Amino acid sequence: MTESDVYARQGFGAVVGSGERPALLVVDFVNAFADPRMLGGGNIEAAVAATVPVLRACRERSLPVVFTRIVYAEDGSDAGVWATKLPALRQLTPDSPANRVVDALAPLPGELVIDKKQASAFFGTDLAPWLVQRRVDTLYVTGCTTSGCVRASVVDAVGWNFRPIVIEDCVGDRAEGPHAANLFDMRQKYADLVTAEAAIRAIAGGA
Amino acid sequence: MTESDVYARQGFGAVVGSGERPALLVVDFVNAFADPRMLGGGNIEAAVAATVPVLRACRERSLPVVFTRIVYAEDGSDAGVWATKLPALRQLTPDSPANRVVDALAPLPGELVIDKKQASAFFGTDLAPWLVQRRVDTLYVTGCTTSGCVRASVVDAVGWNFRPIVIEDCVGDRAEGPHAANLFDMRQKYADLVTAEAAIRAIAGGA
Amino acid sequence: MTESDVYARQGFGAVVGSGERPALLVVDFVNAFADPRMLGGGNIEAAVAATVPVLRACRERSLPVVFTRIVYAEDGSDAGVWATKLPALRQLTPDSPANRVVDALAPLPGELVIDKKQASAFFGTDLAPWLVQRRVDTLYVTGCTTSGCVRASVVDAVGWNFRPIVIEDCVGDRAEGPHAANLFDMRQKYADLVTAEAAIRAIAGGA
Amino acid sequence: MTESDVYARQGFGAVVGSGERPALLVVDFVNAFADPRMLGGGNIEAAVAATVPVLRACRERSLPVVFTRIVYAEDGSDAGVWATKLPALRQLTPDSPANRVVDALAPLPGELVIDKKQASAFFGTDLAPWLVQRRVDTLYVTGCTTSGCVRASVVDAVGWNFRPIVIEDCVGDRAEGPHAANLFDMRQKYADLVTAEAAIRAIAGGA
Repeated sequence: MTESDVYARQGFGAVVGSGERPALLVVDFVNAFADPRMLGGGNIEAAVAATVPVLRACRERSLPVVFTRIVYAEDGSDAGVWATKLPALRQLTPDSPANRVVDALAPLPGELVIDKKQASAFFGTDLAPWLVQRRVDTLYVTGCTTSGCVRASVVDAVGWNFRPIVIEDCVGDRAEGPHAANLFDMRQKYADLVTAEAAIRAIAGGA
Repeated sequence: MTESDVYARQGFGAVVGSGERPALLVVDFVNAFADPRMLGGGNIEAAVAATVPVLRACRERSLPVVFTRIVYAEDGSDAGVWATKLPALRQLTPDSPANRVVDALAPLPGELVIDKKQASAFFGTDLAPWLVQRRVDTLYVTGCTTSGCVRASVVDAVGWNFRPIVIEDCVGDRAEGPHAANLFDMRQKYADLVTAEAAIRAIAGGA
Repeated sequence: MTESDVYARQGFGAVVGSGERPALLVVDFVNAFADPRMLGGGNIEAAVAATVPVLRACRERSLPVVFTRIVYAEDGSDAGVWATKLPALRQLTPDSPANRVVDALAPLPGELVIDKKQASAFFGTDLAPWLVQRRVDTLYVTGCTTSGCVRASVVDAVGWNFRPIVIEDCVGDRAEGPHAANLFDMRQKYADLVTAEAAIRAIAGGA
Repeated sequence: MTESDVYARQGFGAVVGSGERPALLVVDFVNAFADPRMLGGGNIEAAVAATVPVLRACRERSLPVVFTRIVYAEDGSDAGVWATKLPALRQLTPDSPANRVVDALAPLPGELVIDKKQASAFFGTDLAPWLVQRRVDTLYVTGCTTSGCVRASVVDAVGWNFRPIVIEDCVGDRAEGPHAANLFDMRQKYADLVTAEAAIRAIAGGA
């Protein structure tokens, strides 16, 4: 019996489907994560490129759009356990060019940019209330890394009862193994997975 | 360059170490997850067995001990997106024998049993305040599944600034691939990993 | 210049109005709070009586209905700072008759009953996600006490971006001064206030 | 029977006392709230003055110090229900001089300044984890307004199991009635109340 058989027999992997009111979440697509010499690498640049037409489709339908960044203060006053585990995070200061959303996806006025200190876009932020206010029920998820902030955000989206739909070609990771393993976990346990093409079609079609 | 090289070069995988006041978290070791015909399988039963002496060591030092269960109401009134994705969760009702903590690890009076509806032991529960009250700074983590509720709890522990220490032989999963992949992710990004033997030694030594 | 003048000049007290999808919250109307010899008194019994037709109207329109109770374990394992400040809370154990929702408002299957440990119905509970799942945007608030759990729940409802509408005759307190002072604060800063008659009319009319 | 008799008979108003590790919270003492022509008035300026020696005492003992501000984006992208209820909040933009902490209490490097969108210092912020990291168990509370952000922060502090101690002369409000009513509620239900003199003595004495 393969591992997928184990999951299938126990009823994992069901498709939840889209609700009535989707939003787009773009996780940590900042310069530092698009640059292999900083925190990037792997398929992240490809994922950025694949996100461009998805973002365009969302804007054409006036869907709510949220970007996230990891941000720590210059003076270290807000660095906690995560910044001890990953000291490289401390370079992600508020005004560093490395911490600007990549030009190809630059936020427009009225789109929300969330500064967070944890992996999840929801932890210690006002993302959930912002989505409540817009009566969102479905969250298309793009960004990086698949095995880090994307997955943590997807798990919390489930907790808040927003249906997460991960756009496979629009999420990236510095390493292929964790990318694939986390797509597997998310598909089995937390999210629907779709291609960018399917997502664009659904968004343009009003679903 | 291997994937571990990528992580090493970017400064991942640092060891955080223990603080002054540890507690023990036992995630979802209930009958349903110990039983391969229900939600169990893989190395979960071995992880339960390995947790017995760890629990004993914690009790000898009077450390705070917390157990978790996933619980959904009989009438389905509290089933959300996660229970749609994983319909098997709905069998985890409050009084089902399948949802009792396994006999080998039965909670004692004064130990906390948290009923949760999400993967993370922290989400929508009073676990964080309970740990605050006891001035805990370090969380030894055992339970199942490694790729599900253990990992989600570890990510949230980091968020709350409790240092998570995952006891490798005391966490289990129904499938080996996700078990190993999630241990990798946690070691690189969120937690220290130790053996049960090392954990027992540290706990007995007062660390 | 009177105090109301100060508030008016600074722009307090605006009316927010109802959204498209209301729900009803019934805070802590359990036997212990309806009984002046336990934790009740003042106008609480009158508020229970005024809530009966409001609940009926909500059920006729199939609105989501949520009840809350304060619940502490028999063994004291979950008693925190609030139970130190208010030792009387410890009598509110899970199966005590004193802690049953009053008969006049007994919950129906499918209505949610939230057990909480804090004043706010949202703190450490899954109320916010439950409302998200039903795409609620407006929360009619009834219950007791006005100066305690009602007010705390209203402040958190604002935080989650649910519009709170307090039904004045359906909230009660053991003492008149705090009741009036907290209605004043809520009207000025957090909530719309309406009469039960107006609420019933709005609910029946589909607003 | 007076109202205080009702509270006394039901066991309200117990003194919780200080723990081992206090921190200082300074709520919203920014220029806009110190200015009666903006959002200030009443006894707020006196409360600022009374806080100066308290802050000095905390710094001498190297206690953790946290300041809060209400902050909304210039473009209105993050304005929710609370900013609809209180449109005046929208002037509290990130870089407005009106929204700087008052000069008399200017934060030092390493002290935390929390930007929040709600009344409570804890809601949607990383305050609780920051206090966890420092193993704080007691929170001295100063700031404004007593009937708004101070009270909301105190109620949440209880929820997180930090013991709140409100320094009476260091909290202020634009209007005397709500100030007194909320001190009454907090003393009866959520917090100890002490004078600035007693607080300074306790802090200097290491308690």
